[in-house]
Amino acid sequence: MNFRSDNEVGAHPRILEAVTKAFSDGSTAPSYGADDWTHRVERRLRDIFEKPDLVAFPVATGTAANSLALSCCTPSWGSIYCHAEAHIVVDEANAPEFFTSGAKLSTIPGPAGKIDQKKLAEALAQPVYGVVHHPQPAAVSITQATECGTVYDPDEVASIATTAHRHGLKLHMDGARFANALAFVGCSAAELCWMAGVDVLSLGATKNGALAAEVVVFFDPDLAREFEFRRKRAGHLFSKMRFLSAQLEAYLTDGLWLANANHANAMARRLVAGLTTLKGTQLLYPVDANEIFVILPPRMHDTLQAAGAQYHPWPSDRPGERAYRLVTAFDTEQTTVDRFLSIAKKAA
Amino acid sequence: MNFRSDNEVGAHPRILEAVTKAFSDGSTAPSYGADDWTHRVERRLRDIFEKPDLVAFPVATGTAANSLALSCCTPSWGSIYCHAEAHIVVDEANAPEFFTSGAKLSTIPGPAGKIDQKKLAEALAQPVYGVVHHPQPAAVSITQATECGTVYDPDEVASIATTAHRHGLKLHMDGARFANALAFVGCSAAELCWMAGVDVLSLGATKNGALAAEVVVFFDPDLAREFEFRRKRAGHLFSKMRFLSAQLEAYLTDGLWLANANHANAMARRLVAGLTTLKGTQLLYPVDANEIFVILPPRMHDTLQAAGAQYHPWPSDRPGERAYRLVTAFDTEQTTVDRFLSIAKKAA
Amino acid sequence: MNFRSDNEVGAHPRILEAVTKAFSDGSTAPSYGADDWTHRVERRLRDIFEKPDLVAFPVATGTAANSLALSCCTPSWGSIYCHAEAHIVVDEANAPEFFTSGAKLSTIPGPAGKIDQKKLAEALAQPVYGVVHHPQPAAVSITQATECGTVYDPDEVASIATTAHRHGLKLHMDGARFANALAFVGCSAAELCWMAGVDVLSLGATKNGALAAEVVVFFDPDLAREFEFRRKRAGHLFSKMRFLSAQLEAYLTDGLWLANANHANAMARRLVAGLTTLKGTQLLYPVDANEIFVILPPRMHDTLQAAGAQYHPWPSDRPGERAYRLVTAFDTEQTTVDRFLSIAKKAA
Amino acid sequence: MNFRSDNEVGAHPRILEAVTKAFSDGSTAPSYGADDWTHRVERRLRDIFEKPDLVAFPVATGTAANSLALSCCTPSWGSIYCHAEAHIVVDEANAPEFFTSGAKLSTIPGPAGKIDQKKLAEALAQPVYGVVHHPQPAAVSITQATECGTVYDPDEVASIATTAHRHGLKLHMDGARFANALAFVGCSAAELCWMAGVDVLSLGATKNGALAAEVVVFFDPDLAREFEFRRKRAGHLFSKMRFLSAQLEAYLTDGLWLANANHANAMARRLVAGLTTLKGTQLLYPVDANEIFVILPPRMHDTLQAAGAQYHPWPSDRPGERAYRLVTAFDTEQTTVDRFLSIAKKAA
Repeated sequence: MNFRSDNEVGAHPRILEAVTKAFSDGSTAPSYGADDWTHRVERRLRDIFEKPDLVAFPVATGTAANSLALSCCTPSWGSIYCHAEAHIVVDEANAPEFFTSGAKLSTIPGPAGKIDQKKLAEALAQPVYGVVHHPQPAAVSITQATECGTVYDPDEVASIATTAHRHGLKLHMDGARFANALAFVGCSAAELCWMAGVDVLSLGATKNGALAAEVVVFFDPDLAREFEFRRKRAGHLFSKMRFLSAQLEAYLTDGLWLANANHANAMARRLVAGLTTLKGTQLLYPVDANEIFVILPPRMHDTLQAAGAQYHPWPSDRPGERAYRLVTAFDTEQTTVDRFLSIAKKAA
Repeated sequence: MNFRSDNEVGAHPRILEAVTKAFSDGSTAPSYGADDWTHRVERRLRDIFEKPDLVAFPVATGTAANSLALSCCTPSWGSIYCHAEAHIVVDEANAPEFFTSGAKLSTIPGPAGKIDQKKLAEALAQPVYGVVHHPQPAAVSITQATECGTVYDPDEVASIATTAHRHGLKLHMDGARFANALAFVGCSAAELCWMAGVDVLSLGATKNGALAAEVVVFFDPDLAREFEFRRKRAGHLFSKMRFLSAQLEAYLTDGLWLANANHANAMARRLVAGLTTLKGTQLLYPVDANEIFVILPPRMHDTLQAAGAQYHPWPSDRPGERAYRLVTAFDTEQTTVDRFLSIAKKAA
Repeated sequence: MNFRSDNEVGAHPRILEAVTKAFSDGSTAPSYGADDWTHRVERRLRDIFEKPDLVAFPVATGTAANSLALSCCTPSWGSIYCHAEAHIVVDEANAPEFFTSGAKLSTIPGPAGKIDQKKLAEALAQPVYGVVHHPQPAAVSITQATECGTVYDPDEVASIATTAHRHGLKLHMDGARFANALAFVGCSAAELCWMAGVDVLSLGATKNGALAAEVVVFFDPDLAREFEFRRKRAGHLFSKMRFLSAQLEAYLTDGLWLANANHANAMARRLVAGLTTLKGTQLLYPVDANEIFVILPPRMHDTLQAAGAQYHPWPSDRPGERAYRLVTAFDTEQTTVDRFLSIAKKAA
Repeated sequence: MNFRSDNEVGAHPRILEAVTKAFSDGSTAPSYGADDWTHRVERRLRDIFEKPDLVAFPVATGTAANSLALSCCTPSWGSIYCHAEAHIVVDEANAPEFFTSGAKLSTIPGPAGKIDQKKLAEALAQPVYGVVHHPQPAAVSITQATECGTVYDPDEVASIATTAHRHGLKLHMDGARFANALAFVGCSAAELCWMAGVDVLSLGATKNGALAAEVVVFFDPDLAREFEFRRKRAGHLFSKMRFLSAQLEAYLTDGLWLANANHANAMARRLVAGLTTLKGTQLLYPVDANEIFVILPPRMHDTLQAAGAQYHPWPSDRPGERAYRLVTAFDTEQTTVDRFLSIAKKAA
């Protein structure tokens, strides 16, 4: 009963198989991304996102994807506006600042992990543009699904994009769990991204069935001009690139990415449905994707722990109550969920 | 007949198998390196290098390994002394400068890819220490095997280390092909590293049978103090770290790394033995490891190309002659070598 | 009637005279700070701050002073806690991030330009220490006098220092207007600095009578270990250093710095005393030092402007009201203040 | 008899007077370069360099001027080609690397401080352009007068510029002693700069009569696009900018800069004329400007030292001989030179 994180689970068999196949039997391939796997990934993304001129670059970690993407959107004296609890702010050890050679993350509060759009608009309306003393607003970054497990709908994304673009800023989306968000919304990938105004997407696969693979997708190819130099300079260009691309190809083939996300989301919903009937539990945020933030009564928590359930404590503002985070994954089994719920029920 | 690079080949079956096993069957593992695979890799390295207090950190690319290692050895106002043709100088798009926030690579010439020790000693004897205007000598970096396919023997390493340490500099070894060097020298891993004075080693696996795995080995644990923050900040901390560690564990088990290197070296020697009997060929450098730099007569080159042989042209100082690089790998087949030689012979 | 800024005014005659004297009549002096002026400045600061082991380094701009000081207090993966409106956040074009190679400024709100101490304590109590994902809390920076013209008293400084030090953070004080703050509080320089826990002070002179001179004062000499390399590397080491030091020596001699600050503060108080008797005016913040933030009725503002008074509009939260900033300086004449007040009075 | 450096001398009276005037008598001026002095400096430079669209930015140190200028010419993954003994390589503590966020200085040897043009052409002919692994050639930087006291004539500059521009590189000139070089060549400022292909010039004043003032002159205004943000971000934007500009205005008025340089050069020639008649002395390089590198017999050196002459020892390749550097300045008195020579003569 490991609900600690979707980065603690294994990999999907089709992805493992694709990697094995790409590297077996004396196969050789051009290095550094000149291979067929990498080309096919880009073509597949163009189909899936209905954008024939997008450009895409595999990398191995989400921090690399975000930081490299953002470094294409801002000068060193620029500001990136993002939620106060964004992964790029609190969980990446200043990687965005490192990759941008010192750009600033300017945080905007907002409920349930979403940027307060009014506050964003106010921040961007400050008369700082072109004034040499002030950090120059350069980009907005939103997380989809958010750090609170909620999902921006296409209208919300579009509204943020409009605000950003009006002032000349780029819109980046940290899509470490983009598949989960897309599965929730049910629209097309295009509608949740570039049609809503996203300029560049960090599209995650690691948390959703890959070993280690993300891909930075530029809907605006001009923005990618420096990307390949930045990736190499940061040590993120893989010599045997097909290792990354074979994973991504399998991930994006026959809808595996969405099937995995749908499953993880369904398991989360099942958990929520069960938990919320129990006395003393309370959700901190709506559960749109595959993360559940929930208050559990002490006795229920103790009983679950004793039974071997694993999940992280989470900061909560509510005095006297203890919150926890549970994460489901592409391979979470229904029986595991049900066993968890059955134990919780007994302790309720 | 692909002799283009040892980064174009596949992966060793035992490494593929280890990865698959680590990620199959609903397995979960703590993320970010707290898993058992990662612990076992460090223990194995302590055994192999006979150094119970070494600390080791897996990363995915050689550029990351080198740059992160060097960033622990120098302040931003420091100098790293290295060969003028070192990979860190000419093939890493200023990654070392990026990771060190601007340290300088000071190049030292020398024949066959090896630093001229007299010139190094002269450079380090300059009266710049503590003088605020001058970049501060901080580290020496040598490549083992070198970019010219030659190998420093333990005495040569020790002599460089003595010079470096006398002035307070650290000694880094770029061991992208360390296994090939070690296989050539035939001493112990310890003797070629810390016993000879190496402070930190970038130990490569990718070119020698892995998918994407390197490991930074600090023989001086104090030097590693900041490593983990630096790795995370650069986006090189893998969430599913066992992906890297499973490769490295298989690589370091039952001597796979040396067996692979021995095979690659043997194939290189076989190629050399055959080629040097042919008229018009000439080696640029001794072939100690698995890289051959050789002048081929135009007709031989054309015939080989027509027959599908692949290898890179290489800059040569000799007017009117064309040089090429051929690289063998852990999976180069003897029949391929022999076929290559047979075609070359006919064109001689 | 220029109340736009204390950086638009001239220089004090004694400072001009000191500079002229230092550079006249074929005088020569060792360069780069090895001159007598620079030595004397450090000695004078040791006397004034009653700290015989402090070390002090002249620089030419406040941004350089702050950024260099902070870069000695944090690694690149560190966080500097400061007020949301701090000069280092909004007015230095990401210089602190540049000099620290990417440290983060984590902002804390608080009324009247002062950090909310409860919120600071909460922020520093987060369980992020040693956890590689999270920016590492490294320093607190406070501005004295604050950006709102208020002054922290020694107890407030000590309380912040205690919180910072408890968690291992350093305390930096941006003292661009430290003299004005000290003149207001009336304690000793030591009491407002290191006795209250300040580790490093950016002590300003430019706004208070110098041409261009600031000095970074380390009360903890260990913290200054890298300073001289950092200053040189940033192009802030002056060859004819006595230019900076001659200014600072005059500034710190015979109490000129405090006399200047006292005068500027007195002029501000006189302005405030006059303005607050007038209908429709309202102070945004207490006027502790030499900056006044005040709401003026439209007619009063128009009349003053028409009469040639100069001052900046200032953002105000109060709907329908217009706020302005007026700054007095070491050379603001009482007759100018009185003329301003007399015009304002007529328009009231 | 101080011949140690032209940065140890005082300032020219007209420059001191200009500074004093700019800051006296309750004068106020817009801050941060919006003042009249700064505007006039730019206009004067446009006249002097016969280039109505040049843009110019005062800074306070030569290291700042060079590093800021270069940071406008290269991405972080770029290479700057310069002489192996260039000031930016050996005397700026990695400031260029810092300001460019990690660009590489690629050194080219050459006699007497001048880049070997054949070697430069070879280096720039390497097939690295657009290849993501290799640092991208971005700029050439030459020093005028060179670190060996020699001067590039307009044809030499033009030849380097042609090579640089052919490959798309920018040409930067470190003109810390540009006035001395110009005085030597005797052509127009335009002919030695932009007409010969220089894109950006660091024009020094500090060593030639100013207190602390340099100005970065962009002959290509497009190249300056980011300059003002870079200057502010590095803490090099002065609030009381007229301090810098008043110096520069006086420096560039009525030919003061050239008069000062002519005098310094003449004093150097007088020294050389006297010294070279003495037995055992030998010049290391031609003395084009105001620096003399000369071998002195031990007895002569000892006698001079005993008489109070000051100058620096200098590295020399010639075994058994001791070389020294003597620098003359705008205010070196002929009687001092003659006294020096007379003492030397007695010891010859």
